[in-house]
Amino acid sequence: MLNRKISRRSILLGAATTVVVVSSSRSARAQADPLPAWNDGPAKQAILDFVHAMDQVPQKDRIATFDQDGTLWVEHPVYTQAMFALERVHTLAPQHPEWKDQEPFKSVLANDEAAIAKFGERDWAEIVFATHAGMSQAEFQDIVGRWLATAKHPRFKRPYTELVYQPMREVMDYLRANGFKTYIVTGGGVDFVRNYAERIYGVPPEQVIGSSIATKYEIRDGKPELMRLPKLFFDDDHAGKAIGIDLFIGKRPYAAFGNSTGDREMLEWIGAGQGARLKMLVHHDDAQREYAYGPAGGLPDTHVGTFDQSLMDEAKAKGWVVISMKSDWKRVFAFD
Amino acid sequence: MLNRKISRRSILLGAATTVVVVSSSRSARAQADPLPAWNDGPAKQAILDFVHAMDQVPQKDRIATFDQDGTLWVEHPVYTQAMFALERVHTLAPQHPEWKDQEPFKSVLANDEAAIAKFGERDWAEIVFATHAGMSQAEFQDIVGRWLATAKHPRFKRPYTELVYQPMREVMDYLRANGFKTYIVTGGGVDFVRNYAERIYGVPPEQVIGSSIATKYEIRDGKPELMRLPKLFFDDDHAGKAIGIDLFIGKRPYAAFGNSTGDREMLEWIGAGQGARLKMLVHHDDAQREYAYGPAGGLPDTHVGTFDQSLMDEAKAKGWVVISMKSDWKRVFAFD
Repeated sequence: MLNRKISRRSILLGAATTVVVVSSSRSARAQADPLPAWNDGPAKQAILDFVHAMDQVPQKDRIATFDQDGTLWVEHPVYTQAMFALERVHTLAPQHPEWKDQEPFKSVLANDEAAIAKFGERDWAEIVFATHAGMSQAEFQDIVGRWLATAKHPRFKRPYTELVYQPMREVMDYLRANGFKTYIVTGGGVDFVRNYAERIYGVPPEQVIGSSIATKYEIRDGKPELMRLPKLFFDDDHAGKAIGIDLFIGKRPYAAFGNSTGDREMLEWIGAGQGARLKMLVHHDDAQREYAYGPAGGLPDTHVGTFDQSLMDEAKAKGWVVISMKSDWKRVFAFD
Repeated sequence: MLNRKISRRSILLGAATTVVVVSSSRSARAQADPLPAWNDGPAKQAILDFVHAMDQVPQKDRIATFDQDGTLWVEHPVYTQAMFALERVHTLAPQHPEWKDQEPFKSVLANDEAAIAKFGERDWAEIVFATHAGMSQAEFQDIVGRWLATAKHPRFKRPYTELVYQPMREVMDYLRANGFKTYIVTGGGVDFVRNYAERIYGVPPEQVIGSSIATKYEIRDGKPELMRLPKLFFDDDHAGKAIGIDLFIGKRPYAAFGNSTGDREMLEWIGAGQGARLKMLVHHDDAQREYAYGPAGGLPDTHVGTFDQSLMDEAKAKGWVVISMKSDWKRVFAFD
């Protein structure tokens, strides 16, 4: 049953690449490749070997968790959700004349990039609460959906929802074809990500774990609503990712994918399980096709995940596989 | 595909009842009955009609939520988890000589049932924190598993895990056979219920939503552990059930089953959705086979869910279906 699924999918995935392949044995190999956007190398091989080892694991325990920003889609120059929040401040400004003289809103409205780059946690919390709270869950979903339909990334000039890494989408598909449940475990807001996760990653709302603000049950006009409050409920980052996985799933995943120190504890938690466990980190070292930051240097990572030397050292010490965007990925985006 | 699943399952479920059936037409009906532990009547019919109406709903949206204590298994004379906590106080007493003179532990150790019946929220919190915190998640699972293996219900003299309502297990099976994901949404502790939910209800850990205490990520002897803290994190009862459903699932379920005022907001939340939604309440009115409390009178509900007149009134006003244990259930337990 599973094998049939895989080979059907593999044929579909491989179809585009067979055109340039010459010998029949190479063609057969290309057709069987579930990861055509990956170059051959240790990262791709680690994924293939891991899935092979999963024959030993009951299907109900096959869980894989993926960080989102910087792991599944572009996070530079600023998280998509932060961009949403900044643009939302502009949209709401007419209803808040006081923001013109009040930080951090003043700097946002003045598009003062230097000031925004220096925002601390408290500034961002104020911006998030002003833009993400004070409405019902249904109203928030409507606002996010409408924003995503028109917003574009400043460099790629495409909707954010197109800036998904094609190799990672292939990994998700490949794992699902092998009986895995794929989860997103994001430091971002769970309700924001649920708005599009099924559409662009094939991950349903109940498999998105993320940070959340508190909500309050209220009867409005005789109808129950969940109102969003300006108060953090759960911070699903760093240790919060291990805690969130335990709280929402209650099982230790077999595979985890991240790209920053915010994913460190998630990878440690998965790695402490017995048997084959796949721990991977995306390293942004491709300034040409995407961005180069972290140990690859180049860009500042003020607003994005930090991939510092300590994470690289831990990866080496613990056998976590570092994915080089530049050398491991044949294609970065579906539109490449 | 679905139909095939249903009929195969129905044949299996019906097999035991066909022996006593005489005419061939009756036999065919018995074999097709997915709910053999239910008497014919409005409650059973409501379930059958609801599942029929679900043809219109995409399978990915078919979510059903079940309260646990008093809805899926016996909650009288005290919640199973409260029994665990009380017995655990006795077990831990030698390490806590101070408890002999310190309430609420003093009353527990003296088996002072009158005092225990008067415990307030703060007393129970102290007992829960003393018995459910201060160990890792893995250690807690081990403690719960060992307790469940030997503990017995004071009246039925059977393991608690056998005190599951057979009609409700049939509803879960029937819904799953029709493409539903079944969730438990309990005021009880999520980690306690996850210990056995898959084994006795077929509900995997990731589909158990419940109350939780805070955990802390710690490296012990080089290995990450999640340590349980004496601090409430999430109270999954009353409004918390609607909030928990939204937080953990992110979709509005189509069916919900409860038995107390703690389930009121869950049923209201489900009922506010469009299209066919099934809202059911188990009414404990069967002193002979189980217990009679709530509007059916008889026993006090000090430690169990409250089914008061206001809930009965709301059920009538909103078309929620009240299940009479006495008249709607042909069998109560699998061992009947």
